[in-house]
Amino acid sequence: MAGIIREESMGDLWNLWFSELHKGTVGLTIKIKGVLFSGKSDFQRIDVLDTEEFGKVLVLYGSIMITERDEFIYHEMLSHVPLFVHPDPKEVLIIGGGDGGTLREVLRHPEVKKALVVEIDRMVVDVCKRFFPEVSRGFDNPRGEVLFEDAAKFLVNNKNKYDLILCDSSDPVGPAEVLFQKDFHEMISKSLSPDGIFVAQSESPIFHGETIEKVYKNLKDVFPIVKMYLAHIPTYPSGTWSFAFCSKKYDPMTNFLQGKYDSLKLPTRYYNNKVHAASFMLPNFVQSLVE
Amino acid sequence: MAGIIREESMGDLWNLWFSELHKGTVGLTIKIKGVLFSGKSDFQRIDVLDTEEFGKVLVLYGSIMITERDEFIYHEMLSHVPLFVHPDPKEVLIIGGGDGGTLREVLRHPEVKKALVVEIDRMVVDVCKRFFPEVSRGFDNPRGEVLFEDAAKFLVNNKNKYDLILCDSSDPVGPAEVLFQKDFHEMISKSLSPDGIFVAQSESPIFHGETIEKVYKNLKDVFPIVKMYLAHIPTYPSGTWSFAFCSKKYDPMTNFLQGKYDSLKLPTRYYNNKVHAASFMLPNFVQSLVE
Repeated sequence: MAGIIREESMGDLWNLWFSELHKGTVGLTIKIKGVLFSGKSDFQRIDVLDTEEFGKVLVLYGSIMITERDEFIYHEMLSHVPLFVHPDPKEVLIIGGGDGGTLREVLRHPEVKKALVVEIDRMVVDVCKRFFPEVSRGFDNPRGEVLFEDAAKFLVNNKNKYDLILCDSSDPVGPAEVLFQKDFHEMISKSLSPDGIFVAQSESPIFHGETIEKVYKNLKDVFPIVKMYLAHIPTYPSGTWSFAFCSKKYDPMTNFLQGKYDSLKLPTRYYNNKVHAASFMLPNFVQSLVE
Repeated sequence: MAGIIREESMGDLWNLWFSELHKGTVGLTIKIKGVLFSGKSDFQRIDVLDTEEFGKVLVLYGSIMITERDEFIYHEMLSHVPLFVHPDPKEVLIIGGGDGGTLREVLRHPEVKKALVVEIDRMVVDVCKRFFPEVSRGFDNPRGEVLFEDAAKFLVNNKNKYDLILCDSSDPVGPAEVLFQKDFHEMISKSLSPDGIFVAQSESPIFHGETIEKVYKNLKDVFPIVKMYLAHIPTYPSGTWSFAFCSKKYDPMTNFLQGKYDSLKLPTRYYNNKVHAASFMLPNFVQSLVE
């Protein structure tokens, strides 16, 4: 653990920058006010940076996971899209998601009886509770629970159980690599109830086209309904992020629950019923990756 | 004019980076293979960079204007959205657009009899013809024309004439600042025919919220129909870019020309009929900027 704190007297002479590069040739660069935390867990390097533009930033394995300013986009779009499609999502499993943001959004749906976060890395949860209380507050809800375990091992003993599984993972390098493999998707399918839905973050269609082609081909072998949807996330590589909606029964468009949407009136900042439908309308070059 | 060309023997020791920063605190950083051109026109600094990830990149006044890899997104979305709404767009005016990409897309519509580019800076056109022939090829079409003049002066003498005016400008600093003012929008309105449409690029809703609030308030004072639409553009700040669709008569949703779309079968790489509608469905925090 190391801390570098900006001395105010340095003024504009203090120039500390964090860059997240794609292929070492292009990336987002952010001016840092200070490094609030740097640590090494059993699984990865973990950093918390303080920035002017995005507030506090969580970095896992060198990649930005969440920022205070725009985390709502990713967490709303991962959660509410399937939760306004499944008619009775009682049991929800979140794989990864140690920051708690997905849990927070899932628990806004009153019909969810229990949401379980299976996070491999306890230090992620501890760091987020300390530095991102607005994100991790889902952990305080009695309907939320967290288990520190390898998701692949957990799934073996939990078959035919979940109405919704959300894969809130980091990139397919380091500890999350296994979560993008077909074997894992087959285990997910077995852990879902017969009308279950699985949604996973699926990288940038601008920068990770080859990964996306492989992953969607695998997903289509496992699930009868597989559709990509997109969101604008400024702090993820390229600013365009994709999600895989995989379902045994419900279609994300024709089964959208307008009645539930109208009555629940969630105070979302990104998601709404029109964005729900629009996010599945893909530009031609993106559509060609998943056809 | 200066040229810095990478020596292959330098290998990975050669590290030249270009960064476009927002407020000096966050931005896109791109590794540069070489600087192909740097010049100063009467209006601005102009650079052409060679990059691995995005190919050649045109930089005006320090901001990325186009890259070989993703220019199609901006040019398709600026052009085809209004051209699949106006039923008879014979006369089209493009303000700015000296790279020729918007002209190229506009001329794919056979009912356009003439498309005139009014660009203030001749050097932009010359540089693009030299370094971006695939973008500037619209200038070779006999239905396309270019005039080197201040758009504000040009509009005074061209009233009630254009079916469609596209404002393909750089950011509201430097030579393009005037194009974001209400006086200018009123001149635009007078130069449009009674059922004319005006579309302008309108910056990033993530980074330029205050500018957007002001500009849309002005536009609504001038045009009866004003709607924002969005596109994913990885090399523009934040990756999310907005366009203002301003119209005297036609609504971008209800007046979409499905028949023309089906028969024209344009080989677009981003735009399609579903993206057309979806791009107007705004996230809540973006909608609140333009309400």
